[in-house]
Amino acid sequence: MVRFFVTPEELQQEFLVLTGENAKHAKVLRLKNGEGVLVCDGQGRECVCVVSDVSPECISLVVQHRQDSMTEACVRVSIYMAYPKADKLEHVIQKATELGAYEIVAFPSARCVSRPDEKTIRKKIERWQKIAASAAEQSGRGRIPQVLTLPSYQAALERASQADRALLFYENEVATTLKMALEGDYRTVSLMTGPEGGLELSEVETAQRAGLQVCTLGKRILRCETAPLCALSAVMYDSGEF
Amino acid sequence: MVRFFVTPEELQQEFLVLTGENAKHAKVLRLKNGEGVLVCDGQGRECVCVVSDVSPECISLVVQHRQDSMTEACVRVSIYMAYPKADKLEHVIQKATELGAYEIVAFPSARCVSRPDEKTIRKKIERWQKIAASAAEQSGRGRIPQVLTLPSYQAALERASQADRALLFYENEVATTLKMALEGDYRTVSLMTGPEGGLELSEVETAQRAGLQVCTLGKRILRCETAPLCALSAVMYDSGEF
Repeated sequence: MVRFFVTPEELQQEFLVLTGENAKHAKVLRLKNGEGVLVCDGQGRECVCVVSDVSPECISLVVQHRQDSMTEACVRVSIYMAYPKADKLEHVIQKATELGAYEIVAFPSARCVSRPDEKTIRKKIERWQKIAASAAEQSGRGRIPQVLTLPSYQAALERASQADRALLFYENEVATTLKMALEGDYRTVSLMTGPEGGLELSEVETAQRAGLQVCTLGKRILRCETAPLCALSAVMYDSGEF
Repeated sequence: MVRFFVTPEELQQEFLVLTGENAKHAKVLRLKNGEGVLVCDGQGRECVCVVSDVSPECISLVVQHRQDSMTEACVRVSIYMAYPKADKLEHVIQKATELGAYEIVAFPSARCVSRPDEKTIRKKIERWQKIAASAAEQSGRGRIPQVLTLPSYQAALERASQADRALLFYENEVATTLKMALEGDYRTVSLMTGPEGGLELSEVETAQRAGLQVCTLGKRILRCETAPLCALSAVMYDSGEF
């Protein structure tokens, strides 16, 4: 079923109307009276609707029933990624959204080559959020993961450590596997990875003191954009998503 | 330790000499007498060596000991991917190599938009193999996965079905999860995925008749370049790599 995103306020109204970009998209799809569509609030709630009227500017819908999104993961996985170079963050946002991440958090660490200033971030965050929205639509999600940035490594550690499982992947760790770290029940997971040059040992130690568990993703060195997606796939698998 | 790839024949010699591209690379790294290096045959065997002489054209090495590569996965996972559009196959080759794939096999299926002819394939296969070699070096692998192409969907099914677990991922499958399909012991796995438009139902049925097990990668629709990497990450996790 075709999927449109509206605001949570709009979704609560009794009669739904698609306007603006949504109406344009509906036109491209040549939606007709009587067709079914899914309208999502991007936060996990959605309405199954039927088209009742098509006019040049807007599409009127009748709500059939409201439900929680059926395509969201049971476990909330937050990706914490040190700023990578070039457009790798965009790649990770797109793929992590497809793979079911709850949110994507970018932050600076000692060896980050890319260190966007506040102004750059304000400009980019809108673009990053659009990438997440587009990937959410394409992969059939009911929720658009939020993309956010934190001003420091310490701030990232503090936020990440709140999860049931707060994990940091480090290429020199050999003893603790992801499987060990995931043992038992969990509802929320933080997955933290470093930039191109990796994290410094002192940063890894700081993370441990902040309550993060350091673990390995295996014997091969993964690129900084591969590691979070590999870990996310494994957590989704472990939590019974597929 | 720095890693160089030579042919299996070269690796068997008592005295190893780095020439050509390897010698150039060694110069860039400013290798000096007494330094340790790893020389791999790209097929899982390797030598720990010490530099004994540096001349403008070649680097002489003394073999310390020979071993099986320590970074290869215990399970042999073959990626079977229907030709995708644009440079997505290159992306998958690079990432699947990092993630430890044994080989990457591309083949045509009914909805493939990209259908390279034999001449194009001959030109491209060299580039694809170079991408695998470079990713193998960067990720510290002892084996360079082979990239190969098959002329038909049927040929891909026949080859894929030889593995202990031969799996096809299909977005309309809901009952069989990857976890169910992986139960029990396995040493070899084939992971098959379709092109942008997905596989046709008749193709899925043909695959089942050929002995492949159809399974799901979850409730979200993954892009054709995301699905094989997600499945590969999960198999590596399941088989105890991390």
